[in-house]
Amino acid sequence: MTDDAYAALEQLGAAPLWRFYGNLFPAQPRSRALPYRWSWQDLRPHLLHFSKTLSLHEAERRVLMLVNPGLTDPPATVTTLYAGLQIILPGETAQAHRHTSNAFRFVLEGEGAYTTVNGEPVRMAPGDLLLTPGWHWHDHTHQGDAPMIWLDALDYPLVNALEAGFYEQYPERLQPLTRGADLGSRQFLHGRLNPTWLTPDGTGNSPVTRYTWQETARALDAIAEDATGSEVDGIALEYTDPFTGGPVMPTIGCRIHRLRPGFDGAGRRHTASTVINVVRGEGATVVDGVRLEWSEHDTIAIPGWATYRHVNASASRDAVLFSYSDEPVMRSLGLYRTEPGDPGA
Amino acid sequence: MTDDAYAALEQLGAAPLWRFYGNLFPAQPRSRALPYRWSWQDLRPHLLHFSKTLSLHEAERRVLMLVNPGLTDPPATVTTLYAGLQIILPGETAQAHRHTSNAFRFVLEGEGAYTTVNGEPVRMAPGDLLLTPGWHWHDHTHQGDAPMIWLDALDYPLVNALEAGFYEQYPERLQPLTRGADLGSRQFLHGRLNPTWLTPDGTGNSPVTRYTWQETARALDAIAEDATGSEVDGIALEYTDPFTGGPVMPTIGCRIHRLRPGFDGAGRRHTASTVINVVRGEGATVVDGVRLEWSEHDTIAIPGWATYRHVNASASRDAVLFSYSDEPVMRSLGLYRTEPGDPGA
Amino acid sequence: MTDDAYAALEQLGAAPLWRFYGNLFPAQPRSRALPYRWSWQDLRPHLLHFSKTLSLHEAERRVLMLVNPGLTDPPATVTTLYAGLQIILPGETAQAHRHTSNAFRFVLEGEGAYTTVNGEPVRMAPGDLLLTPGWHWHDHTHQGDAPMIWLDALDYPLVNALEAGFYEQYPERLQPLTRGADLGSRQFLHGRLNPTWLTPDGTGNSPVTRYTWQETARALDAIAEDATGSEVDGIALEYTDPFTGGPVMPTIGCRIHRLRPGFDGAGRRHTASTVINVVRGEGATVVDGVRLEWSEHDTIAIPGWATYRHVNASASRDAVLFSYSDEPVMRSLGLYRTEPGDPGA
Amino acid sequence: MTDDAYAALEQLGAAPLWRFYGNLFPAQPRSRALPYRWSWQDLRPHLLHFSKTLSLHEAERRVLMLVNPGLTDPPATVTTLYAGLQIILPGETAQAHRHTSNAFRFVLEGEGAYTTVNGEPVRMAPGDLLLTPGWHWHDHTHQGDAPMIWLDALDYPLVNALEAGFYEQYPERLQPLTRGADLGSRQFLHGRLNPTWLTPDGTGNSPVTRYTWQETARALDAIAEDATGSEVDGIALEYTDPFTGGPVMPTIGCRIHRLRPGFDGAGRRHTASTVINVVRGEGATVVDGVRLEWSEHDTIAIPGWATYRHVNASASRDAVLFSYSDEPVMRSLGLYRTEPGDPGA
Repeated sequence: MTDDAYAALEQLGAAPLWRFYGNLFPAQPRSRALPYRWSWQDLRPHLLHFSKTLSLHEAERRVLMLVNPGLTDPPATVTTLYAGLQIILPGETAQAHRHTSNAFRFVLEGEGAYTTVNGEPVRMAPGDLLLTPGWHWHDHTHQGDAPMIWLDALDYPLVNALEAGFYEQYPERLQPLTRGADLGSRQFLHGRLNPTWLTPDGTGNSPVTRYTWQETARALDAIAEDATGSEVDGIALEYTDPFTGGPVMPTIGCRIHRLRPGFDGAGRRHTASTVINVVRGEGATVVDGVRLEWSEHDTIAIPGWATYRHVNASASRDAVLFSYSDEPVMRSLGLYRTEPGDPGA
Repeated sequence: MTDDAYAALEQLGAAPLWRFYGNLFPAQPRSRALPYRWSWQDLRPHLLHFSKTLSLHEAERRVLMLVNPGLTDPPATVTTLYAGLQIILPGETAQAHRHTSNAFRFVLEGEGAYTTVNGEPVRMAPGDLLLTPGWHWHDHTHQGDAPMIWLDALDYPLVNALEAGFYEQYPERLQPLTRGADLGSRQFLHGRLNPTWLTPDGTGNSPVTRYTWQETARALDAIAEDATGSEVDGIALEYTDPFTGGPVMPTIGCRIHRLRPGFDGAGRRHTASTVINVVRGEGATVVDGVRLEWSEHDTIAIPGWATYRHVNASASRDAVLFSYSDEPVMRSLGLYRTEPGDPGA
Repeated sequence: MTDDAYAALEQLGAAPLWRFYGNLFPAQPRSRALPYRWSWQDLRPHLLHFSKTLSLHEAERRVLMLVNPGLTDPPATVTTLYAGLQIILPGETAQAHRHTSNAFRFVLEGEGAYTTVNGEPVRMAPGDLLLTPGWHWHDHTHQGDAPMIWLDALDYPLVNALEAGFYEQYPERLQPLTRGADLGSRQFLHGRLNPTWLTPDGTGNSPVTRYTWQETARALDAIAEDATGSEVDGIALEYTDPFTGGPVMPTIGCRIHRLRPGFDGAGRRHTASTVINVVRGEGATVVDGVRLEWSEHDTIAIPGWATYRHVNASASRDAVLFSYSDEPVMRSLGLYRTEPGDPGA
Repeated sequence: MTDDAYAALEQLGAAPLWRFYGNLFPAQPRSRALPYRWSWQDLRPHLLHFSKTLSLHEAERRVLMLVNPGLTDPPATVTTLYAGLQIILPGETAQAHRHTSNAFRFVLEGEGAYTTVNGEPVRMAPGDLLLTPGWHWHDHTHQGDAPMIWLDALDYPLVNALEAGFYEQYPERLQPLTRGADLGSRQFLHGRLNPTWLTPDGTGNSPVTRYTWQETARALDAIAEDATGSEVDGIALEYTDPFTGGPVMPTIGCRIHRLRPGFDGAGRRHTASTVINVVRGEGATVVDGVRLEWSEHDTIAIPGWATYRHVNASASRDAVLFSYSDEPVMRSLGLYRTEPGDPGA
């Protein structure tokens, strides 16, 4: 076969498969993402610095993106998901907008802010999980006394890879408040009771606007002694959609993990990609031979199909991790696979 | 046509449809069940009487069946469902058994008893809803100081009509306790968080063993001011299965209703049959022209396709109703129908 | 306990559970229905007789109900289902009506008639299965040259037991024809291809109006040599809803069975109740020790939880059975149970 | 803000969101894929040329990839899907392998070959659709007299973007034949009848191995005059999974379209990406202002969110198109959006 023949093919929009085979069909996935830890101690000062030097009118959102060294263009934290650290100062507001990407915030520090989601002011306190499902208007307002910082999570790397992203800015800076504060949360959070006058909106998104830390802590406490848990993931609880019992959004699943004192987890891998934020405690996650030491509010990336295991470094105190992953995507598309393994190190 | 011809048919196991038509195909359902109220004030003394004169070794369960005047043979409360008032004394136990029928208990009075369900002791306090899904072993033990009384509910009228009932007695009086107390409840009740190490058992029954009144009250309180509710059913919350978001059992749906002070409901009817127990307050439910006055712990039968409306007689206090119905059956089988209406009276 | 005390209870609408226990909770179901065979040879002359002596203006439908000896009041064929033999003469029409009950016809003899279902004329030929889902208008018209006879099947015993039956007569004798003949069938029957411009109507009923014998025969022929089949039910194929892959109606499942020459089936029982019509061949079904010999067009009742097995009496020819059952009901409500067994005889 | 500050951030794995905003959140999707047509007339000679100059022992598969000019690295036909033209000569075999990617073949020319899928030989004839769901072993054998050419389709661009691809080669060149020829097809293709002894394998893949052109043609013929169809897509039928009524694989939906003589379609766009192969006829598809003229066996790419409309150039003959798309992905993930539009030109 001459190169001319291949050139002729190229003119016709064709190419010989046999020259690409190995690249297109690897024996197993090797994620472009790398195991990585982002240090809260190191990044927090930068956040504070920017909060003083960059106004929220210059920046639509004041966020430090947590960019995986293997995923710089376009930037992402793991292959399908993004994490950022957002800071907002007392008196500030952040412009209302909406996007196809599903998003949530997990609050790390401060109090007194709220996010307005489709007209509902949703209050924010440390440990709270706030949902902003795709195409919901949202803006932020801070009425407290000190800076607030939260983890911002979105699935835009997935949505953009699928070329399904839409974005729109609200005509005014803030939406009007049209619903009771935290109503989406209060209607659903207690006792597995669902309001009969509400029905699912058909999007597969949870109607709970705010999963409060107060309830999360109660859930962990309620089974403190009896929980079986998982030898890999500890006492892992999944945040669920009251209408389906499934994940909170079609593309992102969220979990809280309690690792008991001295927890020394078993190793496992799965095709889902995971991001973890440390709620409290100290320990390490070993990922494909890389040991990522962590303490409070650090963020960890576990690439898909990387083998990992968790260790709680304390023999006397719990460690608590918040995690999110694209497992719902992998399951919906029939691509979820998992097996035990030893990450080494 | 001579009678001889019909007699010949009968010998062949046949009959002329044209002689039965109207009976088999009524223009609309007319339930054999009647609108009815069972008085707690009147029945409670009888319960106490039997608690002293009949031992739990004579009676497998010491229960007064609430028999609808239209449904005496076999006895039922509404067409597909049963309600009874059960009493147990301090120190007593009730024999372990299991049956295909789905069952639950809703606690009216007393404390200190527990029901053991498949090895889990489930504590009982007023306002608690305890599930005993079909074919789960269950027995009762009372360790308190005063009689306990609860509403027993089963779907045996349905199961027997469908000829699908099985029953088995446990070889000993009580099951061994093999799980933590209230574990099924504690694992699921808070914050819409599901344990990731548990999976549905495939029966369509909720894994929550006990929906505590504490959580139910918190749910009602959380939306006290903001709830839209229904003009027919008040602020009605459905107890749900954490794995599906659907009803707690495939044949029975359970709800709690808060009727605000002065609530004067709209009328409606549906093919589902309903039983109501009054948690607190005073009022009336008008059913097909019959006015059923009710106060605390009274039980009400609303037959299927009967038009009804609720009234809270107090202008200053809430009324709270607990209800259960066969709506899940009607929906699963495509037989649910509803329309507004005026019950008169 | 004195009788006075019980009388007082009765006045209050209550009764002592302990006097009813065994009846309400049997160890296992014992159907009121009996194993039975209705003889085509015996009943056909009666049908022809009535076709001459009773006009279709006198009888809304000219049908011989197949009444199970154990289920005479109200009449039914098995506990939840009904079968009848309907005859219509050339030139006759049968009044348009609709009812909540799901219905179908399975054609035994003749040609030239059609059933109009919600405006669509659906042609009828031997071996065809025609659906008339609940609340669909339907009437019959016969334009052929000889009497037509079909098996009529309805779930009215179930619907009436659940008190969910509605009925309405069309204001004129026949509906106007508003759709192409057999359109519901032609749109769906070939190659597992679904029209993209149609969507499910939400009722859980198949949109296929007519499952033709031609396609059923092709399905059996296509796997004649390779089918594994079931040792109990032979090569049993389920008629399905194209939108769900599930049963054709929420309350009734339909199947065609080919029993190979010499088939001598294994025994089994299940909580579902079954009616069988013999399409062709000769054999026997043993049900709880009763041997029911059958030949072409005979009808058989197999009560729920009765143990049964099928035998093809011919060593050289197939037997083909058409069956329908309430298995979808039992499964939806979590009441399906099955086990192997030996019916004896 | 100095560049030093940004450099410091980069060292910590962070980046300022405000410098990326517009790129990450476009107002609407603009696919990297371009509207394109691959000419059968031009490519077929190249296929024949390679069939003589490249052995199937050198090339695992002899396929010309249809590479979208906007998607050359990695090569893809539309963003999530791939199409290639594969040729195999009489007497040849193609190595058995399996991969996570879902695949199918749509036969364009020749007869006498079969694909073995998990032990079942599946015959191939023009117009047939053969499924090879993810992780099913498959190899090809050609026993006919002339070259066979088919369209190969895979979702590897999606699977690789999600980093979920696994691949394995069979230890021998061909699998043993362990099932009857076309059994997966014969068991399911006729009359909407499902074998009761088979159950879904839980992967969401259709068990039909071969959707024959014979059945597809019968389906189109059966509604030739009555089909309503769609003003955009003509008389479009979806190939379905018999167990669910849904798409044939979780990531790919397949359709056949008949455009009546003179069909001049309405314009529309949706987030799904589509590939079309022309079964017969001549016409044009206008995509975002680009007019793609097509005739038999040409392949067309319609990028996601591109507006398109179809035209049948003949006033007397049908055009028939086969299409496949990632609509199931978009729907599963809540990313499907569609609206009417005018593609211009």
